[in-house]
Amino acid sequence: MLHLKSDTDERWLKQVDQSLELILIDHAHCEKKAAGTALNLIFAYVENLELCREMTEIVNEELEHFHMVIELLEKRGSKLRRLKPSSYGRKLNDLVRKQEPHRAVDRLLVAGLIEARSCERFQALAARVKEPELAAFYQSLFESEARHHTTYTRLAKDFATSAEVMARLDELAELEAKIIAEGDSDPRMHS
Amino acid sequence: MLHLKSDTDERWLKQVDQSLELILIDHAHCEKKAAGTALNLIFAYVENLELCREMTEIVNEELEHFHMVIELLEKRGSKLRRLKPSSYGRKLNDLVRKQEPHRAVDRLLVAGLIEARSCERFQALAARVKEPELAAFYQSLFESEARHHTTYTRLAKDFATSAEVMARLDELAELEAKIIAEGDSDPRMHS
Repeated sequence: MLHLKSDTDERWLKQVDQSLELILIDHAHCEKKAAGTALNLIFAYVENLELCREMTEIVNEELEHFHMVIELLEKRGSKLRRLKPSSYGRKLNDLVRKQEPHRAVDRLLVAGLIEARSCERFQALAARVKEPELAAFYQSLFESEARHHTTYTRLAKDFATSAEVMARLDELAELEAKIIAEGDSDPRMHS
Repeated sequence: MLHLKSDTDERWLKQVDQSLELILIDHAHCEKKAAGTALNLIFAYVENLELCREMTEIVNEELEHFHMVIELLEKRGSKLRRLKPSSYGRKLNDLVRKQEPHRAVDRLLVAGLIEARSCERFQALAARVKEPELAAFYQSLFESEARHHTTYTRLAKDFATSAEVMARLDELAELEAKIIAEGDSDPRMHS
C-alpha cells in the first residue's frame, strides 16, 4: 500500500535510541514542511479543484500534527529549535522533472513517497520507543500519513495515465530506497 | 480599530460595478496568498509558540475562505483562473525593513494592514453589490479579517515595544493609504 522498496534498517533505529529528542524536533519541522508542500501545490495547480480541496485538508492536518509534536516536546521539557535538515528531501526533490505535466506528477509522487516513508518510520518508532504515550502518538499518525500517500498518488493521475503514474512511482520508489539507505550522520526523521 | 488612514474611494467602487467577476477571482487568490503569508511566518519565527498557534488558525481560516470564494464563483457559472496580481502587495512588502527584529515587526504589520484594507473593502462591497447572498458573504468575512488585523498587531509586540509598534503601524498605514490611492487599471481586490 505504501509502495516503498525497503524497510527502515537497524542503523536508523540506533540513531533513534541515542537521539530521540533530535528526531522529535526534526519531526516537528517535517510536519511544518509537509504543510508548506501542500500549500505550494495549491499555488501551482490552483485550477484543479479536487487538488485544492485535498491539499487544504492536508495543510490543516499537518499543522495539527506540528502542534502535537510541539506539545509533546514541551511535556518532555524540550523545545522546538532550528535544525539542519537531513539531505533526504532535497535529494528527492532533485528527481522532479522540470517540464509539465511531468513536473506535477513528480511533485505529487515525491510528496506521497515522503508521506509513505514517514508512515513506515512511525510504525518502526511505535515498536521501538519505550514510553507508551510516545508509542501511541506515533501509532496515531500512521493512519493519516498512509491516507496522504494514497491521496497524492491518486491526484497524480489527473496529470498522466494511471499506467504512467504507477510506472513512475515504481521508479521513484527505487530511488527513494537508495536515498534513505544513504542516510545522514545527524539523527533526523529521514536520516 | 483597523488603523487605516483612508476610506475606499468611488474610483474603486466603479471598478467593482464594471468587473465584479474579476474582483471575486482576485479575492480567491488573495485568500490563498494570505494563507501563504501566515505559513511563511511560521517558517520564519518557528520558536515563537504563540505566533505559530495564531498563524495556524489564520492558515485554516484563509483556506476556508478560499474555498468559499471558489464555491461562489462556481454558483455564478465562473471559475478560478490565473490573474496578474495588483501591485498593492508588492509595494507594501517593499516597505519591510531587512534587519531583524524590525523585519518581523514589519512583516506582521504589513500582513495586518492588508487584512485591515480587505476588511474595509468587504464592508464597501457589502454595501455596493446588488445580490443579497454576495452582500451577506462579504459581511461575514468582515469579522474574521478584523480579528486577523488585531492578531498581527499584537504579535508584532513580541518583537518591539508597544510604543515602537504603534509608531511604525502609523507610518506604514500612511504609506498604505498612498499605495491604495495609486490603484491599478486592472480591477482587483486592492486595485
